[in-house]
Amino acid sequence: MRRLKIVIAYDGRPFKGWQSQPDGETVQDYIQSAIAGICQLPKVTLHGSGRTDTGVHAIGQVAHFDVGANNSMDTNAWQRALNAKLPASIRILSCEEVAKDFHARFQTKGKTYRYEIDTVAVQMPLRAGLAWHVSHDLNIDRLREAAAHLVGEHDFAPFAANRGDDSQGPTVRTIYGIDIGETGRTLTLTYSGNGFLYKMVRLLTGALIRCAQGKEDPQWISDLLANPQGGKSSFCAPADGLYLVKVDYGGAKNS
Amino acid sequence: MRRLKIVIAYDGRPFKGWQSQPDGETVQDYIQSAIAGICQLPKVTLHGSGRTDTGVHAIGQVAHFDVGANNSMDTNAWQRALNAKLPASIRILSCEEVAKDFHARFQTKGKTYRYEIDTVAVQMPLRAGLAWHVSHDLNIDRLREAAAHLVGEHDFAPFAANRGDDSQGPTVRTIYGIDIGETGRTLTLTYSGNGFLYKMVRLLTGALIRCAQGKEDPQWISDLLANPQGGKSSFCAPADGLYLVKVDYGGAKNS
Repeated sequence: MRRLKIVIAYDGRPFKGWQSQPDGETVQDYIQSAIAGICQLPKVTLHGSGRTDTGVHAIGQVAHFDVGANNSMDTNAWQRALNAKLPASIRILSCEEVAKDFHARFQTKGKTYRYEIDTVAVQMPLRAGLAWHVSHDLNIDRLREAAAHLVGEHDFAPFAANRGDDSQGPTVRTIYGIDIGETGRTLTLTYSGNGFLYKMVRLLTGALIRCAQGKEDPQWISDLLANPQGGKSSFCAPADGLYLVKVDYGGAKNS
Repeated sequence: MRRLKIVIAYDGRPFKGWQSQPDGETVQDYIQSAIAGICQLPKVTLHGSGRTDTGVHAIGQVAHFDVGANNSMDTNAWQRALNAKLPASIRILSCEEVAKDFHARFQTKGKTYRYEIDTVAVQMPLRAGLAWHVSHDLNIDRLREAAAHLVGEHDFAPFAANRGDDSQGPTVRTIYGIDIGETGRTLTLTYSGNGFLYKMVRLLTGALIRCAQGKEDPQWISDLLANPQGGKSSFCAPADGLYLVKVDYGGAKNS
């Protein structure tokens, strides 16, 4: 048995998210089907680093799968064969053989997400579906102040949505940093942390933008974190502007 | 009667080009329908600066239409009302009232088109449909040499496709310049000229890339232009990478 690790980019718009579903219109289903076709197997399982929702994009999703020892294709051939079978909206950016105990989900040490917001009066058509369009004036100083409250180890329950399956588990996470960038009329929020709860990046972004619009005080975020079972933020930014940028496996060992 | 000039951006992918067609899935049809809805008229005519093909994008298409003197909406209200009725893949970037003898098609003095080419080994999913993917090595010196032959006044018949309706007319045009830019692994060719024949920018780009790949000598372009009835280039770059950037009406008079 050989274990292969792939780095994947996708346009989230045509898919019902990452996670396999019975009707098959997900990124995982497309890649599993491509692998199965190459291996001439009825079904294979691809293990992703985690789910992304419908409409969320990726430029550095990571997954692994196993191939039998009888498969002699090298990793370059695997990358080419997968890209030949996949739609142009999913691309395998790299493929490498990893240790048999590598696991794309259980060994993640951290993730980086980017959220893009267009603040122009009229959003350019080629940015539709790729950035949240917020034409209100934003106060970046207030945004920075609000973001500073989020950095560090906190119980982020106020910024987690329920998947509806009681799967939530512990809600303490560490955000290493939130980088705030402005290029022209595009605002970019880059979140790095040891892990993110369901819809957490979109809920954090929604809350930060509420502060930047002057609709909430930055202290509101601090108050929510201080009493994590006391209430939830309900402002969820749309999937359009969210990108999974990088999955970190901690050092050179398996990544 | 008031004449309104609009500047339009669109994502070419969802549409069957600019020009109105019986089944209606064109940019012109969508905008005409939005204007008609606002004016509560069964049908209106929008005059564009010229056609763009299926899949070709625009960031500065120009068109004009007339509204009755009884319509009192100011130009900002027109822009907002049109954008409210149009899909996000078409945006009205500006609207202004112009002289009654302004004509978006007959008064064009020049146009600028941009063609984008991604030269990476694997094209990122979010660039699919937005740039031509050419993974061969390109020789930019040969590209510059070939492009230099095209600048100036020439009979561009070797670089024009037939619309199939004998509508071609004169084929002499002037290219003012071809700017060649490289950003990362994206090559950008920006053509400005007094006018372009049917599919001319795509045929020019196809020919330039043939030279940059070493498949044709730059002199081949010069030979085609020297004997314009002698033969045609048949290498047409895909619509994906083409953008109508700007329509020039010569000075401040009406633009």
